[in-house]
Amino acid sequence: MMKSSFQPPHRILMGPGPSPVHPRVLEALARPTIGHLDPEFIRLMDDIKSGLRDVFRTENEFTLPISGPGSAGQEACVVNLLEPGDTFVACVNGVFGERMALMAERAGAIVLRLAQPWGRGVDPEALREMLKAHPETKLVGFVHAETSTGALSDAKTLAAVARENDCLVLMDTVTSLGGVQVEVDDWGIDACYSGTQKCLSCPPGLSPVTFGPKARVAITGRKTPVRSWFLDMNLLIPYWGSSAKRSYHHTAPVNALYGLHEALLLVAEEGLPQRWERHLRVHRAMVAGIEAMGLRMAVPAAERLPSLNTVEVPAGVDEAMVRRQLLDQYSLEIGAGLGPMAGKIWRIGLMGEGCTEHNLMLLLDALGQTLADAGVKVDRAGARAAVEA
Amino acid sequence: MMKSSFQPPHRILMGPGPSPVHPRVLEALARPTIGHLDPEFIRLMDDIKSGLRDVFRTENEFTLPISGPGSAGQEACVVNLLEPGDTFVACVNGVFGERMALMAERAGAIVLRLAQPWGRGVDPEALREMLKAHPETKLVGFVHAETSTGALSDAKTLAAVARENDCLVLMDTVTSLGGVQVEVDDWGIDACYSGTQKCLSCPPGLSPVTFGPKARVAITGRKTPVRSWFLDMNLLIPYWGSSAKRSYHHTAPVNALYGLHEALLLVAEEGLPQRWERHLRVHRAMVAGIEAMGLRMAVPAAERLPSLNTVEVPAGVDEAMVRRQLLDQYSLEIGAGLGPMAGKIWRIGLMGEGCTEHNLMLLLDALGQTLADAGVKVDRAGARAAVEA
Repeated sequence: MMKSSFQPPHRILMGPGPSPVHPRVLEALARPTIGHLDPEFIRLMDDIKSGLRDVFRTENEFTLPISGPGSAGQEACVVNLLEPGDTFVACVNGVFGERMALMAERAGAIVLRLAQPWGRGVDPEALREMLKAHPETKLVGFVHAETSTGALSDAKTLAAVARENDCLVLMDTVTSLGGVQVEVDDWGIDACYSGTQKCLSCPPGLSPVTFGPKARVAITGRKTPVRSWFLDMNLLIPYWGSSAKRSYHHTAPVNALYGLHEALLLVAEEGLPQRWERHLRVHRAMVAGIEAMGLRMAVPAAERLPSLNTVEVPAGVDEAMVRRQLLDQYSLEIGAGLGPMAGKIWRIGLMGEGCTEHNLMLLLDALGQTLADAGVKVDRAGARAAVEA
Repeated sequence: MMKSSFQPPHRILMGPGPSPVHPRVLEALARPTIGHLDPEFIRLMDDIKSGLRDVFRTENEFTLPISGPGSAGQEACVVNLLEPGDTFVACVNGVFGERMALMAERAGAIVLRLAQPWGRGVDPEALREMLKAHPETKLVGFVHAETSTGALSDAKTLAAVARENDCLVLMDTVTSLGGVQVEVDDWGIDACYSGTQKCLSCPPGLSPVTFGPKARVAITGRKTPVRSWFLDMNLLIPYWGSSAKRSYHHTAPVNALYGLHEALLLVAEEGLPQRWERHLRVHRAMVAGIEAMGLRMAVPAAERLPSLNTVEVPAGVDEAMVRRQLLDQYSLEIGAGLGPMAGKIWRIGLMGEGCTEHNLMLLLDALGQTLADAGVKVDRAGARAAVEA
């Protein structure tokens, strides 16, 4: 029974997403709705496509936001690139690599999983061997930034290995785009998707995607229709195309796109390299603080994802109780582990607007106090000093 | 190249959607983002499910908004209810019935089209004959309110015919829900979808769906996986389920859901029967005004959809020029015809917040003036008098 307006609490969002949204983006969401066929809306679309090309670092014409969350963009890439019977190698080092495999199975592909340890980047040598054994592979998929574990993979090398074997390359950048260096064209990525609610600091609900020339040929030259009408790029491209040849598909989420436009403008104002540098700087301070406190990072130093930091839960600590206390007492959200890492790690986001020294200090203070209250010996002063250094 | 914030013009939205959004809904969109696993978010989900049950007029537990526009909800219904080889009868009397057929083909179903004249409701007798000839039919789909033509079908009778033949019933209520009487339980509808940007007066981007007990059995008892991971109700139901057994699927579009919550509250405050009555009253005034002006409605009186009114373009008039002038001179949007009706009709929405006598008068004045300027003989004073009567 609906009785009154929903007034959300003010949270400090330091989980795996959504991340904090800039007031300018929130304000943009509330601008008056216009029609999706309005000439002004076409101007909005053009701006967004251009802004997305900038953050993806690509010249790809086929660059646009899918009208659904990251998993819609993920499925859009999978179902457009794969036809029944195609061979797909999925690099699985966490929840989201496995999800790619599951989607490909539903698309009728033959799916080969390159199983990798959770909490580590994907090993390019293992991929090379897999592809040698399976020269029929059409597409290789991997997750650049595994949100479920906090591991960053060497995307450039993985893409090179795939291309040496004449495979198309699909990359998940949900938790890297706009916060960690992504170079779609330079790395030779054929298709890439992301979400808006991580390092772009938009609300969830849109999924930027980009397709390069080889992916485009694979999509326009399919022998079978894409299994999803809603996600068929052959229908979406003309909808997002230039006004002269634009055709109707669905009704785009107008107000959400106002928000994405403003968020992309904020990225452009800060500068992409500056933004990557900020994420790296705050991440390094976080590692210093966490380790000075006496806690341990879950991922080896060389494979850590700056935007999503996984911290091992100290022995004997009820991790859910800690998260609940952080939420109740500090209105601060952090995330739990998923799958085999459930109960063993916390996932702490330093993404987009939320990636600041101020938020980090708050997190360390709140986590330190909560652990101390639970009887865990932590060096809170040491953590603070390490961050300030 | 992004240079500045996007400031949309203020439009009077009287096309086929989006419809005008209430300031309270716009304001709700801009509230601070919270996490989709926050306990407060679960409260929001519960309220929304309850509010949707009220507008669908159902007790169905499986009632929730899909995280995508109406076409995502449409595809969700089709791909969850149909397995490869199932027989689907699609009643096609416009663009959206045909779209249902196209989606079902991609889902691997055997699709039988009941082709009906565009601009008319679906004939229940024709459906009865079709089902007699095809007793193997598993699912019958029809569009209650055809947005492409302005025709309203007799949903109650169509559903009864389908059930007499032991078929599941799928109904599209994109342009009726919240504006025209919809009775999911009373009419025996097994599955139903809608959009937020029509009579609910939310921005586009969400698609309410509901599944009854028989549809639920068909979905949970499938022999093959749903072809879409993103739209699989077997995964979505636990995500939208009660907090105790809630499982992770995607990240819901938090701020868009704030807007839907507020829009459902506005519906509850007005009262659903009062809202239907308002749509009917303004629609009748519109017909009186249009006919008094000397123009003709495109759909026979008994089959007209109150929320979306189609008007014949007078001979010799460049309909696109008229729409452009309405937009440029009055900032007023109306819609063009689609498919075989392109160039022949205008589509004029009287939906949700936009369904007012004030908007109607404005439309009649602006359209009358524009036609008079183009040399068409119209009785503008007569139109005004007819509406005021």
